[in-house]
Amino acid sequence: MRILILGGDGYLGWPTAMRFANRGHDVHVVDNYLRRTAHREAGTDTLTPIAPGLPERAAAWREITGQEIGVTEGDLTDWALCEAVFGAFRPEAVVHYGEMPSAPYSMKDREHAIFTQTNNVVGTLNVIFAMEAFAPDAHLVKLGTMGEYGTPEIDIEEGYIKIQHNGRSDTLPFPKLPGSFYHLSKVHDSHNIHFACRVRGLRATDLNQGVVYGIETEETVLDPRLATRFDYDDVFGTALNRFCLQAVIGHPLTVYGKGGQTRGYLNIVDTLQCVELAVLHPADRGEMRVYNQFTEQFSVKQLAEHVRAAGAEIGLEVTVDHLENPRVEREEHHYRATHTKLLDLGLKPHLLSETLIESMFASIERHRDRVITDHILPRDRWRPPEPDTIAADTIAPDTNAPV
Amino acid sequence: MRILILGGDGYLGWPTAMRFANRGHDVHVVDNYLRRTAHREAGTDTLTPIAPGLPERAAAWREITGQEIGVTEGDLTDWALCEAVFGAFRPEAVVHYGEMPSAPYSMKDREHAIFTQTNNVVGTLNVIFAMEAFAPDAHLVKLGTMGEYGTPEIDIEEGYIKIQHNGRSDTLPFPKLPGSFYHLSKVHDSHNIHFACRVRGLRATDLNQGVVYGIETEETVLDPRLATRFDYDDVFGTALNRFCLQAVIGHPLTVYGKGGQTRGYLNIVDTLQCVELAVLHPADRGEMRVYNQFTEQFSVKQLAEHVRAAGAEIGLEVTVDHLENPRVEREEHHYRATHTKLLDLGLKPHLLSETLIESMFASIERHRDRVITDHILPRDRWRPPEPDTIAADTIAPDTNAPV
Repeated sequence: MRILILGGDGYLGWPTAMRFANRGHDVHVVDNYLRRTAHREAGTDTLTPIAPGLPERAAAWREITGQEIGVTEGDLTDWALCEAVFGAFRPEAVVHYGEMPSAPYSMKDREHAIFTQTNNVVGTLNVIFAMEAFAPDAHLVKLGTMGEYGTPEIDIEEGYIKIQHNGRSDTLPFPKLPGSFYHLSKVHDSHNIHFACRVRGLRATDLNQGVVYGIETEETVLDPRLATRFDYDDVFGTALNRFCLQAVIGHPLTVYGKGGQTRGYLNIVDTLQCVELAVLHPADRGEMRVYNQFTEQFSVKQLAEHVRAAGAEIGLEVTVDHLENPRVEREEHHYRATHTKLLDLGLKPHLLSETLIESMFASIERHRDRVITDHILPRDRWRPPEPDTIAADTIAPDTNAPV
Repeated sequence: MRILILGGDGYLGWPTAMRFANRGHDVHVVDNYLRRTAHREAGTDTLTPIAPGLPERAAAWREITGQEIGVTEGDLTDWALCEAVFGAFRPEAVVHYGEMPSAPYSMKDREHAIFTQTNNVVGTLNVIFAMEAFAPDAHLVKLGTMGEYGTPEIDIEEGYIKIQHNGRSDTLPFPKLPGSFYHLSKVHDSHNIHFACRVRGLRATDLNQGVVYGIETEETVLDPRLATRFDYDDVFGTALNRFCLQAVIGHPLTVYGKGGQTRGYLNIVDTLQCVELAVLHPADRGEMRVYNQFTEQFSVKQLAEHVRAAGAEIGLEVTVDHLENPRVEREEHHYRATHTKLLDLGLKPHLLSETLIESMFASIERHRDRVITDHILPRDRWRPPEPDTIAADTIAPDTNAPV
């Protein structure tokens, strides 16, 4: 299949590109290096050394495997680029990771909030229109996030819920309670894609992914030049990856607040499996499928405990700090999210184990001299800049609905 | 109260400004003349002659009533303008009509879709941030649309619905099925505003308004220079207003498809009542109230029948054309939408009557020499440009959920 990977330079995009190439597909990647630029501006960096750009990555891949990966360096919000890429490559499947992916980034200030929403929404609209114009039968596999749902009091279903009301019923989009301007941008995308399916005949799969952890895939280990990035900083780092790094360098694990925040998690190798399953089983014309893409639920406290236990096995003394939570989120809440559809397609989960955590410790240890320690603590706060003008008791972050 | 009217040059914005000024409030209006520009580009125009700009409107208002209405000509997507206006005026209430309001406009092509979403979402984000910075205790009254809900199989509630699921329950945002890129932009706004309330303490009321009809308010009739605009063209005209004009000029009423499309409607004088009630009864800090703002439900067929009957009373022979529907929408469907919250606040509805329709006929008759007849028929189609590449039977516009 001709598979276009948008955001193909990222933590997941690059391993996805190699995976599909390795399976014999015709792969083309697009990236504007937004993440690399944001790191450079912030003075942060990936733990793992990565090739300087996509041409170098593709060249290393060619040298090692003899396979081609096509490369376009450019921005999805640029329509001329979309016309050129979709018109020339005519993809049969489009895997769309090409967005600003960070909640803290989107919460920095007005400019970052507006950039995140404009970048993600306009880029995705361009993708929809480019598919209509150049690849009307192609299948869009869009990376969403479990964070679109927030933490409702009811169980979370996969995209849609059957609602009984006043003696009638309908199956409708699951209501969303996104927790940042970034998560909101993904909710906007989901609505736009659903419309494009309902009204304009697009076929799409929205993968509401949990938090991904892990460093290595079958392809990244073939050569150091094929490594994927590994972020641990306050803006792009995510819970388990960051905890593993903190354990290795002797930094207390930074749990926000009580640590009862429960989310879905999955191993990076399962991300690749899920995306592959979605691509190989396309949605019908006019259909937007939604899959919840994770394999296990953990609270932040539980993750910290797993890391502490794995550290103890190899003689690391791991401590935990409960920081004042920079986010506005429930720290104790109901959380039970359905995630059976990808299992039904054949997903074989790689569950979290001490062995996996210890192998992450080892990978991190190899690059510990690269760790930038002054960007581990959170800096971006969810509250507006002048909280003293707001009476604290009038804000009710722990409620979803109006008073 | 200091009341800021965003989009204060529009069909509803200008009458709202005069209404609040007439009630003794301190009123400031902002508009970038987006609607006037779009008309000029399309070769269409308002039926009613209106003053050339807000300064002239405010000058006429001053001359007639002795009251001041402050004016800023500018764009809400321009943060410097927002800083200047919110910083100087320090509103206590913000009535936000300041968006691109047309579904057909948003469906013209990619550029119009992206412009509509960017303009509306970025403008509203700027308003949220400007309120945080300069008017943190002010109340945002945002004009949404009943079109955010689409036509689900269940009754529509006011913004939120209590869902029972697997033995638990929660009151969550009502699921949305918007029917155009414009309606999607309003859904995005609603999610952004809900977040700003939940997480950052904004107080807001989202008015999901039905289709407005009527030409005159207590203030517009004081002087011809105070008239509000009246659109009847394919892009900005709405069902009942357009039908009344068609009846007067002897054009068949243009019903799209079967005409079973049912929506909520209200008289322009009730829009003013509703907005005033919302402003005078502000939401709490952290609360997003949602009111469904309409007084009656009609199908398009029923509206056409009302206009035909009123025409017959005064000797107009009114015929009805069922055009091929340019939109993708259900033409026969369940529709029952709750709309009690504004009644509870004291709304006294002005229901549709033959007398009202006949008075609209008379107002239209006075300006019939201004009618531009070659922009009455719909031109913008909801389907993608090359429908022949899509097998018609694989698109299921009449279903909300995936197959």
